[in-house]
Amino acid sequence: MFDYRRTHNCGALNRNDLGTTVTLSGWVNRRRDHGGLIFIDLRDRFGITQLIIDPNLPHATRLRSEWVISIKGKVALRATGMANPKLPTGEIEITVTDLEILSHANTPPFSICDEEIDVNEELRLKYRYLDLRRRDLTQKLILRHKVMMETRKYFDANGFLEIQTPILCKSTPGGARHFLVPSRTYPGNFYGLAESPQIFKQLLMIGGMDRYFQIAQCFRDEDMRSDRQPEFTQIDVEMSFGIPKDLMHLIEGLVKQVFKQCGGIELHHTFPHFTYQECVENYGTDRPDLRFGMPLVRIDSIAKRSTFTVFQEQLDTGGCVKALCVKQGSEISRKDIDGYTQFVSKFGLHGLAWMKRQEEGLASHIVKYFPDDLQQELQTLLKVEHGDLILMAAGPEDRVNQALDHLRRYIAKERNLIPENSLEFLWVTEFPMFRYNAEAKRLESEHHPFTSPRPEDVALLNSEPLKVRALAYDLVLNGYEIAGGSQRIHDGALQEKVFGLLQLSPEEIKEKFGFFVEALNFGTPPHLGIAFGLDRLIMLLGKTENIRDVIAFPKTQKASDLMMQCPSPVAPSQIKDLKIHVETTDITW
Amino acid sequence: MFDYRRTHNCGALNRNDLGTTVTLSGWVNRRRDHGGLIFIDLRDRFGITQLIIDPNLPHATRLRSEWVISIKGKVALRATGMANPKLPTGEIEITVTDLEILSHANTPPFSICDEEIDVNEELRLKYRYLDLRRRDLTQKLILRHKVMMETRKYFDANGFLEIQTPILCKSTPGGARHFLVPSRTYPGNFYGLAESPQIFKQLLMIGGMDRYFQIAQCFRDEDMRSDRQPEFTQIDVEMSFGIPKDLMHLIEGLVKQVFKQCGGIELHHTFPHFTYQECVENYGTDRPDLRFGMPLVRIDSIAKRSTFTVFQEQLDTGGCVKALCVKQGSEISRKDIDGYTQFVSKFGLHGLAWMKRQEEGLASHIVKYFPDDLQQELQTLLKVEHGDLILMAAGPEDRVNQALDHLRRYIAKERNLIPENSLEFLWVTEFPMFRYNAEAKRLESEHHPFTSPRPEDVALLNSEPLKVRALAYDLVLNGYEIAGGSQRIHDGALQEKVFGLLQLSPEEIKEKFGFFVEALNFGTPPHLGIAFGLDRLIMLLGKTENIRDVIAFPKTQKASDLMMQCPSPVAPSQIKDLKIHVETTDITW
Repeated sequence: MFDYRRTHNCGALNRNDLGTTVTLSGWVNRRRDHGGLIFIDLRDRFGITQLIIDPNLPHATRLRSEWVISIKGKVALRATGMANPKLPTGEIEITVTDLEILSHANTPPFSICDEEIDVNEELRLKYRYLDLRRRDLTQKLILRHKVMMETRKYFDANGFLEIQTPILCKSTPGGARHFLVPSRTYPGNFYGLAESPQIFKQLLMIGGMDRYFQIAQCFRDEDMRSDRQPEFTQIDVEMSFGIPKDLMHLIEGLVKQVFKQCGGIELHHTFPHFTYQECVENYGTDRPDLRFGMPLVRIDSIAKRSTFTVFQEQLDTGGCVKALCVKQGSEISRKDIDGYTQFVSKFGLHGLAWMKRQEEGLASHIVKYFPDDLQQELQTLLKVEHGDLILMAAGPEDRVNQALDHLRRYIAKERNLIPENSLEFLWVTEFPMFRYNAEAKRLESEHHPFTSPRPEDVALLNSEPLKVRALAYDLVLNGYEIAGGSQRIHDGALQEKVFGLLQLSPEEIKEKFGFFVEALNFGTPPHLGIAFGLDRLIMLLGKTENIRDVIAFPKTQKASDLMMQCPSPVAPSQIKDLKIHVETTDITW
Repeated sequence: MFDYRRTHNCGALNRNDLGTTVTLSGWVNRRRDHGGLIFIDLRDRFGITQLIIDPNLPHATRLRSEWVISIKGKVALRATGMANPKLPTGEIEITVTDLEILSHANTPPFSICDEEIDVNEELRLKYRYLDLRRRDLTQKLILRHKVMMETRKYFDANGFLEIQTPILCKSTPGGARHFLVPSRTYPGNFYGLAESPQIFKQLLMIGGMDRYFQIAQCFRDEDMRSDRQPEFTQIDVEMSFGIPKDLMHLIEGLVKQVFKQCGGIELHHTFPHFTYQECVENYGTDRPDLRFGMPLVRIDSIAKRSTFTVFQEQLDTGGCVKALCVKQGSEISRKDIDGYTQFVSKFGLHGLAWMKRQEEGLASHIVKYFPDDLQQELQTLLKVEHGDLILMAAGPEDRVNQALDHLRRYIAKERNLIPENSLEFLWVTEFPMFRYNAEAKRLESEHHPFTSPRPEDVALLNSEPLKVRALAYDLVLNGYEIAGGSQRIHDGALQEKVFGLLQLSPEEIKEKFGFFVEALNFGTPPHLGIAFGLDRLIMLLGKTENIRDVIAFPKTQKASDLMMQCPSPVAPSQIKDLKIHVETTDITW
């Protein structure tokens, strides 16, 4: 039998190995016949090595793309001018003496050797194992491995224990929708697939584990946006006897180590901290993209003193007026500005006002409503320079913020204001504890019900709960929330009070969280934690906007696996065992 | 606010820290009042430190077991004769100057500070977070973390990528019973929770990933033996372009590193290899416990030449006669030997014959059927010495093997023949490819249907499939199978042939494994792998026989979580969304 065990992989050989006899195994990436010789690019996970084969060698002429072969041969220098400086192996080639075909291959449904392919994603997902051979996807899975490994090393070195928590959990209503798993041993009862290890990690702190982390599989049965998956991965962290400052310091250390070791990127600065209030005021969002300027500026006071009634009316009904300054935007045409107006109308704004700064001062059909001193004040406030464009919006605060946040990012992208390779991290703190759900007419948790209020705000819980700020923090990178966490409530009485404010009845509390409230009363250390979306982190590091690129076997937006063809019908006996009935079976495949 | 952040943990301080001012936080493990002072043993994950508190300090007299406190104080030497050499902190104590109560605790339902507790396991599972505080369980979770970390480091260093595979999979009948997850987006269709990543890891090899591992969560909905859990963890491995020898070498390296780094145990020897046939012949089982001798010895030839008709009859009907020699067993009473007979009858054997070696030779009521030369031959074969006992059994081969395997282990345990701390690893190879299922009247895979036959046996597939040996290997430790794997079939045609031998129709093959057989035909490298039961490995390293001791939040044998009280009924709206009906809802809690 041919011994196909490799002496080297396909990315290893170079000029230092000249004359060495080697065995390589891999896939036929490309074949070219040239000058009476067969040239094969042999591929594996590690690289590509060029083979030179005499067509008289048995099987030589049969070789086709994606066949798996094993060869023996000698490392030789490529002919002058034939070196490929892009490949680490580009200076050498192998003169093949023995050749064995290990496996044939049908013609693949799309090209594997080309960098860019124009194939619909469904076909790629169906033949995922072929798509994985493409360098681009291979590199993303290698990156993912490295990030996980580095994360674990970091937490291990910092005294954290990786502890696995159950996936088959209790399903409690509220929060994300659980996948349900019917129990066979207790008919009519269900498990829920864990949406996060939140309760377990807090129980581990109560259990004295001190410092916990886990790279945890989580599940949610929700109608998916394009960047979501029904199974996703979280870097989950919890520690005892710390305060937010400690945890943020720890997490900055992790991020810096991961970016350095896995992305070759040195992050030198300490991540800045902004309060929730500052973020919303200056960027209209709690996850601002700081890679470019263009902050939102409140101009209520100027608007009030102007004679522009459109602004006045909004201010009179409790609204606000905000503006942003587009650098060198005076070149933007009326038509394009109309496009911006169109854009913000999707967020419920009726219009945008604008002024252009020209040689002689501000110009626009509304400058007449703004006396000179106000124009001056406006320019100072917005740091307007010659050639800039001011855009202004008025309306209810939430709506103005949301619209201008989106507009700001839209313009930045459109006008190429975002420096490539820029990474702008920030911590957002002092989130409100609650938001008001007008439909349900009750408070909801901004984060989750276990989040601790800031000690100085506890007194407001009864009187003005919407003013209570939480000990919560998010880590934001380039406009994405990549991690979120909080100090937790470690006092049973306070936890019950918060449940009460969320209008959970004592019965509901008992049914949903009874065991947890009980646990809190058995000696709970102060504790806090955070959770990272791993998939998102890899996407940012791997520079892709498609979450399916960073998952080995992803599902579609309808939560199906096109390769395995699941979900799928099962045998009636399996369903019968569970003592359930199905109403109908859609034919899926 | 009291700053509860620790300068040291409770296991850190010793004589070198005398005079240092420290902050410690933790749980009140014990409290003793003595000589006008309060002595507190303060506990955390890292250890115990003794505190000395003046009863006049505020709150001092209120402290109770399991309260969480934080203290500031000075490290002092314990009074002469009061040192505790068992504790790393045993020479010092802290003279407390400041004390803060961080959290009160109800009286725990069982003692946490005692090493051994006599509490039923249900209560401990209900209050799992309290049980986790006990040193014994804490240490097991730390061990588990270390084993996982070391495993990852090892595979990473050997070029393996950790790649996560889906948990929501296609449910294919056969094998273990899957947990089913009803799909909301495709009513009447189901996912199955992955029972292992087997198919995915093979697809990763087809995808060119070359070397894969994963510490994978797996699921099976089976009626559980005491050492099983519905969620369990597997160290899962697959590699391309290797042969079994390479993989076994790699795995030996892993085991040695894990035992050394996590258990402080140096394993020097290369693990011996035995064929399946050798194991069954000499120990009656394919997972022999080699920590003690007492092999089974076939004595067909002696029995045939004797005049003992009981043996003759079994031989005439195709059975066998096997014996084992219990060292210094002649002291065993008739009553106890009758007990052994009773024991083997559970396995379908009608009796045991015995002989004792005394001064004058063999003694028993059946020696008369064995002429002197046969007695001599028997003693030589079994290496009988003065004072030994020979036990003999006759019957169908399978039954004799099974009964004597159990008897051998039973006697070893009963007579304390197993050296403590002994670790006897071995590889078992050359498993049969198939077994015959007499009920279903067809062949079944001994391992799984992707296992490759030995190349030299492929020719027997058509003619004598039961004689075909597989390229499969198990790693056995002290009588437990701790890992099992095989070279896989990498040829689509051979895979289809094996499916055919298992009497899967082309339609069934297509439905169950269609995508996989298709994948095999797109260029599959030779590949092989193995899977370890992680839970079992930790049990062996942690010296416990209870699988629940090595899992943070285990389930009962009926697959319920006593702490969270799940599985549980869910809201009718949740069930309605899935378009299923439940027949009945058992009241579980």
